[in-house]
Amino acid sequence: MFLKNLEYLEDYVSGTKGDDTFIRLSSNENNYGPSPKVIEVIKNLSNLTYKYPDSSYSELKNILANLNEVDKNNIILGNGTDEIFFYLFLMYLNTNSSILTIEKTFTYYRILANIAGAKVIEAKRGENFSISCKNIIDSLNPSVRIVIFPSPDNPTGAIIKRECIEKILNSIPKDTIFILDEAYFHFVPKELYWNSIDLIKNYDNFIVTRTFSKFYALAGIRLGYGICSEKVSKLYEKIRMPFNISLIASEAGKTAIFENEYYSNILVRILKDKKLLMEKLKNIGFEVLEESYGNFVFIKAPENLGNKLFERKIVIRDLKSFNYEPGYFRITVGKTEENEALIKAIMEIV
Amino acid sequence: MFLKNLEYLEDYVSGTKGDDTFIRLSSNENNYGPSPKVIEVIKNLSNLTYKYPDSSYSELKNILANLNEVDKNNIILGNGTDEIFFYLFLMYLNTNSSILTIEKTFTYYRILANIAGAKVIEAKRGENFSISCKNIIDSLNPSVRIVIFPSPDNPTGAIIKRECIEKILNSIPKDTIFILDEAYFHFVPKELYWNSIDLIKNYDNFIVTRTFSKFYALAGIRLGYGICSEKVSKLYEKIRMPFNISLIASEAGKTAIFENEYYSNILVRILKDKKLLMEKLKNIGFEVLEESYGNFVFIKAPENLGNKLFERKIVIRDLKSFNYEPGYFRITVGKTEENEALIKAIMEIV
Repeated sequence: MFLKNLEYLEDYVSGTKGDDTFIRLSSNENNYGPSPKVIEVIKNLSNLTYKYPDSSYSELKNILANLNEVDKNNIILGNGTDEIFFYLFLMYLNTNSSILTIEKTFTYYRILANIAGAKVIEAKRGENFSISCKNIIDSLNPSVRIVIFPSPDNPTGAIIKRECIEKILNSIPKDTIFILDEAYFHFVPKELYWNSIDLIKNYDNFIVTRTFSKFYALAGIRLGYGICSEKVSKLYEKIRMPFNISLIASEAGKTAIFENEYYSNILVRILKDKKLLMEKLKNIGFEVLEESYGNFVFIKAPENLGNKLFERKIVIRDLKSFNYEPGYFRITVGKTEENEALIKAIMEIV
Repeated sequence: MFLKNLEYLEDYVSGTKGDDTFIRLSSNENNYGPSPKVIEVIKNLSNLTYKYPDSSYSELKNILANLNEVDKNNIILGNGTDEIFFYLFLMYLNTNSSILTIEKTFTYYRILANIAGAKVIEAKRGENFSISCKNIIDSLNPSVRIVIFPSPDNPTGAIIKRECIEKILNSIPKDTIFILDEAYFHFVPKELYWNSIDLIKNYDNFIVTRTFSKFYALAGIRLGYGICSEKVSKLYEKIRMPFNISLIASEAGKTAIFENEYYSNILVRILKDKKLLMEKLKNIGFEVLEESYGNFVFIKAPENLGNKLFERKIVIRDLKSFNYEPGYFRITVGKTEENEALIKAIMEIV
C-alpha cells in the first residue's frame, strides 16, 4: 500500500503559465506549433473521437521502429514520457531500493521514486553544471535499481558523452536499468550528436526515452516513447493501460514523424535565435551557460527577474523548484518576435 | 518490485475491431459521435496542441463539481477511468491484500489487481446474472482493501440498488474503499435511476467513477473522472501524473457536459432502438437478458454468431474473454441503420 509514502510527498511544481495573453517561455514548448499537416489530421479526427484507439498501437510502433532502425518490439509508448517513467519505476523499485540521478535536474524522477517508496541518490554535478560521469559511477551502490537522467539535461542543457553511457552500463548490475531521457535530443547540433540507440542491442537494461512534447510541438496531446530491449518492452506491455495513448495522440504522432521539412526549418530558426538570445543576455550582463544544448538557455541573473518579467506578461522558469540558488532561470527559446519582446522587457528592467 | 507478478500476468483482451469498413458493435461506443460543438472545439484546438495543459485542471474540475453538486476537491480525473482504477489500486493494495468484485464482469479490475500483486475474490452472481448483494457481503474478508464492480454491469447491464450499496459500505472497514464504476449510468431509465453521489458525504471510502467514453462519445480522447471524499482526492493528487489529461480531452470534456440537447436526443434514440433490437433478437430465438440497462444487449445465441457476423463485417463482443460459456455475446446498440444491418445479417445466418 502506497498510502504511507504519499502523505509526506512533495508536489510537482509545473512552470507558471499566466493566461493566454502571456508569452510562455517557461515550459520548453515549441511555440511555432505543430506542422499544418498535423493540424489537419487532428481536425479530421475530431468527429471520430467516439472510437477507442487500436490498443496494440501497431502502426505507430512500426513507424517509430523504422525511424529508429529497431524492431517494433523495441518500442514502448506512454501518455507523455512521464507515464513511461511511472511504469518503469513501478516495475523496478520497491521500498528497499533506490534510483540514482544527478542533482538539480528534472524534479519528476524524484517525485516518482518517492511515490514508489524508494530512495533517491543524487550524484554531484561536475564543473559548470556538467553531468559528471565519475560522480555518477562513484554514487552507485547495491540498492540502485534505476539510473536516470536527461541528456541534454533539464534545466542546464548539458550533454553526456557516449563513453560515459558505456561506462555506466558496464558498472551496473544486469537487473538495474539505465534510462536516458532524451526529451531534447533534436536540438543537439550535428557535430556533437551521437546515436544512443545502438547500445540497446548490447545492453538489454538500457532504455532511451523521447517525447513529442518539445521538438514536435505536441505537449498538449501527451505522447512519449521509449526504445528498449524486448525483455523490457514485454513486461511494459503487461503493466500499461490498454488505451493509454489517445486516438489523436497516436495519429498526430504518426504524421509528425514525416514532417521533416517543416520541423527542420523551425529547428534552424530556433538554434539561430538561441545563439542571438545568448549573446544579448550576455551583453546585458547575465551569466549564460555556453555548453547548453536544449531549446532553452540557462542563466544567472538578478533574483527578481522572473517576477519583473511576469509583471510584463512574460513567463520564464525560476529554478528554485529545481533546488538552485535564487537567481537561476531557464528560458525557452520562443518565436523570433517573442525572444525580441523578452530582450526588450529585460532592457527595461535592468 | 512488480516484475515478479508481471511475468505470469494475463493480457487484457480488447474488443475485436475489424478495419474501418466494419460496423463496430463490440466496445459500447456511442456511434453517433460527439456533438457538433465538441467537434468544433477539437478543431479549434488543433494548432494549440504545442501547449501543456494547466496541470491543476481547475476549470474542468469546477464544471464537473457543479454538475454533480459537490466541491472541486471531490473530483479526480483520469486518462480514462482505467487510470483512476490504476492509481487507486496502487494506493490501496499490496501483496497481502485482495480486491472483491463480482464474477464474469469487466476484466480490467482483475488485471490491475494482479499487477499490484493482490488477490482477486469474485462474488457469485444472483439469479439471471444479477449483482447479488448477499453474495458480495458474504465474500468479504479482512484482506479485502477494495470492493469494485460496475452498475450498470458490464457485460450484463444489471444494476444494483441503493440499499445494497449502503449495506456494503456498512460492512467494510473504513480503510477499505468501495469503487462503484458507473460508466453506463446515463443509460439507466429515469424510473430506475437513483443518485449515488450523496453517499460520498457520509462515507469517505466511497468512490463513484464515470467516463466520457460511452454516453459522451469520446472514447478516443481518454477522459474519466471520479467523485470521492477529499481524503481520497488529496492522496490521488499526489500520485497522478501532472499532465495526465490531454489539452484536447480537458477542453472537449468541458464542452460536452453542456451539450444536453444533443446528447439527450441521442439517448432517446438509443433507448428506443435498444428496445426494438431486443425484441427482434428474441423473435429470432435468442435468449435476451431483459433486466439490462446499458447501451448494449446481453444475449445467448449459437456459438458461431460472432464469427459469422465478422465475415459480414459486423463485430460484436464474444464474452468468452469475460469467462462466459461459449454462446454469450454483448452487442452495442449502434446507429439505427447499423442495428438494422445487424438484424439483417443475423437473419441471413440463422
